[in-house]
Amino acid sequence: MTEVARYSAADYAHMQHALALAARGRYITPPNPSVGCVLVRDGGVVGEGHSQPTGHAHAEVMAMRMAGEQARGATAYVTLEPCSHHGRTPPCADGLIAAGVSRVVVALRDPNPLVAGQGLARLRAAGIEVSHGLLANEAAEHHRGFLSRMIRHRPWLRVKIATSLDGRTALANGESQWITGPAARADVQALRARSSAMITGIGTVLADDAALTVRDPVFADIGRQPLRVVLDGRLRTPPSARILQTPGVLIVCAVLDGAREAALRDAGAEVISLPDADGRIDLPALSAELAQRGCNEVTVEAGAILNGAFLRSGLVDEIIWYQAPVIIGEPGRGAAELDLSQLAARLAPRVLSRRMVGVDQRLDLRFTDPALFVTQE
Amino acid sequence: MTEVARYSAADYAHMQHALALAARGRYITPPNPSVGCVLVRDGGVVGEGHSQPTGHAHAEVMAMRMAGEQARGATAYVTLEPCSHHGRTPPCADGLIAAGVSRVVVALRDPNPLVAGQGLARLRAAGIEVSHGLLANEAAEHHRGFLSRMIRHRPWLRVKIATSLDGRTALANGESQWITGPAARADVQALRARSSAMITGIGTVLADDAALTVRDPVFADIGRQPLRVVLDGRLRTPPSARILQTPGVLIVCAVLDGAREAALRDAGAEVISLPDADGRIDLPALSAELAQRGCNEVTVEAGAILNGAFLRSGLVDEIIWYQAPVIIGEPGRGAAELDLSQLAARLAPRVLSRRMVGVDQRLDLRFTDPALFVTQE
Repeated sequence: MTEVARYSAADYAHMQHALALAARGRYITPPNPSVGCVLVRDGGVVGEGHSQPTGHAHAEVMAMRMAGEQARGATAYVTLEPCSHHGRTPPCADGLIAAGVSRVVVALRDPNPLVAGQGLARLRAAGIEVSHGLLANEAAEHHRGFLSRMIRHRPWLRVKIATSLDGRTALANGESQWITGPAARADVQALRARSSAMITGIGTVLADDAALTVRDPVFADIGRQPLRVVLDGRLRTPPSARILQTPGVLIVCAVLDGAREAALRDAGAEVISLPDADGRIDLPALSAELAQRGCNEVTVEAGAILNGAFLRSGLVDEIIWYQAPVIIGEPGRGAAELDLSQLAARLAPRVLSRRMVGVDQRLDLRFTDPALFVTQE
Repeated sequence: MTEVARYSAADYAHMQHALALAARGRYITPPNPSVGCVLVRDGGVVGEGHSQPTGHAHAEVMAMRMAGEQARGATAYVTLEPCSHHGRTPPCADGLIAAGVSRVVVALRDPNPLVAGQGLARLRAAGIEVSHGLLANEAAEHHRGFLSRMIRHRPWLRVKIATSLDGRTALANGESQWITGPAARADVQALRARSSAMITGIGTVLADDAALTVRDPVFADIGRQPLRVVLDGRLRTPPSARILQTPGVLIVCAVLDGAREAALRDAGAEVISLPDADGRIDLPALSAELAQRGCNEVTVEAGAILNGAFLRSGLVDEIIWYQAPVIIGEPGRGAAELDLSQLAARLAPRVLSRRMVGVDQRLDLRFTDPALFVTQE
């Protein structure tokens, strides 16, 4: 099925456009991927769209609706291979065939190795010119959460850290509001809004009574909140905790306790036990559980102990680090407990970018390169 | 003596040139300031120079030597008011008069309020057109060490800090070589080379056996080493310490001890006691002592305890912070002990610049604005 595809500058531009459309949908589509699609005829865009919330139209359908009869003979640029199966909506491959599209250019094939290429094969069998791989790495960057879940059966795991220059997240007495400025805090709202789930620890719940919800009015109409996951080994979450005031909370413990469990269920939470052999919460099992529940991108906002446990587990794919230009000093609270015995064991993620967010610096640090999710054949 | 001076674009350019010359001398001139001088006739540069080591030629003399007879009728651009007194060299004001210079433009007047303006007055009395204040803030930035000593009777105090992203300077076991990369370490050599003195604590001497000397071959011909100052309350410095292998060490204690003092003197160190009322080393007294000894810029390279003591003392004018893109984690060693009880007390210096030095980021942080040293009249 390999084919040599040569792409024109226009092909690149239209796929960039499709990726930009896909980016717009990222807050509303989880657990579905946010796909972008552009239909081009005679050099002009006749239709465009991105995925709608789960159960509603896919990107191709949005673009075909806009194009109407002009879809006939058009080229479709799609960030992810069109689906070939009946899910909650009819297969997009069939829709593109029915609409008379003459060429389909895809950035990434279906990430599920069992079905990869079936959508393309269906289109090709209908006489449509088909190619894939255009801006594949860029599409893998955008779709990294969905790809991670499909290919690795675990979510793309992000740790968000906000510190002073000297790496402190709070005073020793716990005071932490605010170290970073309003622009960085608004940026964190966007991280939450794009996440399928937020993970925190019982320490943060007890100390900060954090809700971990998306509250910024700019996200008021996205119609969803991330699942909020509290890692609470011995079920110490108070049923009155603020995080329980918004539905969609999963409390993960290592030791079940009937009475506490019942109280938390009465308060609206789901409670599960995921102990490892040492009686602590099994982080790889948690990761698999969240993938099973359809989580693509998961963000950890926690204290030094949980951050350290995740970083040592090898499950972390990226860190978003906000750094305020202030000094808090010792004995403030740290970012991550690592207990290293030699400097050679220090973590050295790739620095993807550094940029200013208001007065604070944001570093995007990567342990995983999404380009690894691009299937080669 | 106020006068309204209007400067041309050429005037600005020539003074920028004089400042660039001044910057070249910064490693060789302490305790003298590194002054820059440009002589311009008919629009062309006929002489230029910067200060030579103490006891040797001043910038004006270097420029006049180069210009020879062409100095007659020229304009002299000088970063600091020409001296009017006989020191180790004759007064530069007299030299400029004798050379037949017709106009003198000065960035900064003599920072010593008792003699400020006397050099200019002498030139003016000789019929030379005189003005001052061109690029005064830029000149104050360059001359900030000398200005601080003259005006505040204390050195410009710099703290150098090198950490991971999470603000750790070493593992809990003390391992710290190396957190930052070779480019940052080379940059630190330049900080040492421009410093009149380096300050460290007994903890750093005992843990790292640091020499605090300038060792980079690019500085091999500057002909000086900074005074190395060890803050060692109870004289625990071993006479075999590496820092004592290069002459020029001042050990400051809070409690004298005859035998230890004698051993350290035998090892070549000078030992003084500067206790405060609590029996600790008196940092303001130390600062005054170093100014008395002609120190313009002083750099602290120490651990969290001494860094914290200096930061709390209000004596710190700038921090140069190197940050490696690595994570060391708790319980690594911190940058500064501050023992804050409320977040509002955090230190929030002005971020003068952020730039990459190899793979590390260098932040220049300011507590003091050298423009405050520009005398207004």
